[in-house]
Amino acid sequence: MKILLFTAVAALFLGMAGNGRAADPEVRRDKPALRHVVAFKFKADAKQERIDSVVKAFAALPGKIREIARFEWGTNNSPEGHNKGCTHCFTLTFHSEKDRDIYLPHPAHKEFVALVGPLVEDVFVIDYWVK
Amino acid sequence: MKILLFTAVAALFLGMAGNGRAADPEVRRDKPALRHVVAFKFKADAKQERIDSVVKAFAALPGKIREIARFEWGTNNSPEGHNKGCTHCFTLTFHSEKDRDIYLPHPAHKEFVALVGPLVEDVFVIDYWVK
Repeated sequence: MKILLFTAVAALFLGMAGNGRAADPEVRRDKPALRHVVAFKFKADAKQERIDSVVKAFAALPGKIREIARFEWGTNNSPEGHNKGCTHCFTLTFHSEKDRDIYLPHPAHKEFVALVGPLVEDVFVIDYWVK
Repeated sequence: MKILLFTAVAALFLGMAGNGRAADPEVRRDKPALRHVVAFKFKADAKQERIDSVVKAFAALPGKIREIARFEWGTNNSPEGHNKGCTHCFTLTFHSEKDRDIYLPHPAHKEFVALVGPLVEDVFVIDYWVK
């Protein structure tokens, strides 16, 4: 019973720590920032509620993968027409390439990729260290 | 002579203010953030020194266009291969769509576009309000 309680409290604490990190609106200035920019072009027949579930699932990853230092997203409103059909953009921040290397094959990320895969026609990804 | 001196001091002050804003590593938390993400695929025969001059010219824009609240850039290091040949990514932040609408047709931006145009094979642009 004590072990169960400890596990529950530890899980709660880790979850809060994860959310706290992810919810922080800006990266800490004293840490390097590796941006991971992901844009999706959804298939024409992708239903809005499934697109919404993709956004929700992506936004849940920072709570599951503690290496994600920051997460933000939004929908395209560029008037320039160079978005190649992509409507949704997500920018994740890591503090190291090692953290990104943990994220990419992480089971929670793999699960997300399996969810989004059938819905997208195209994906654009670019990563860069903020110079 | 006094007018000249005043103009020089005012220009210096405005330039510093512009740089201060642009150099600020993070957006102020009390202001909304409209991200403007731009990625370039340079032509295969584009010389490195001309690519470097593009980066330098882009990085100079926040000092010329005060509506740019923040500027960052870096070169692609994603292992995923979804960057569509784009090697350079630039993220500008505005605090309003009006500020972006001033930026896009701004003479300094137009001058930059004329510089980069002949060197790029493809461009990806996506803008989003951070939700």
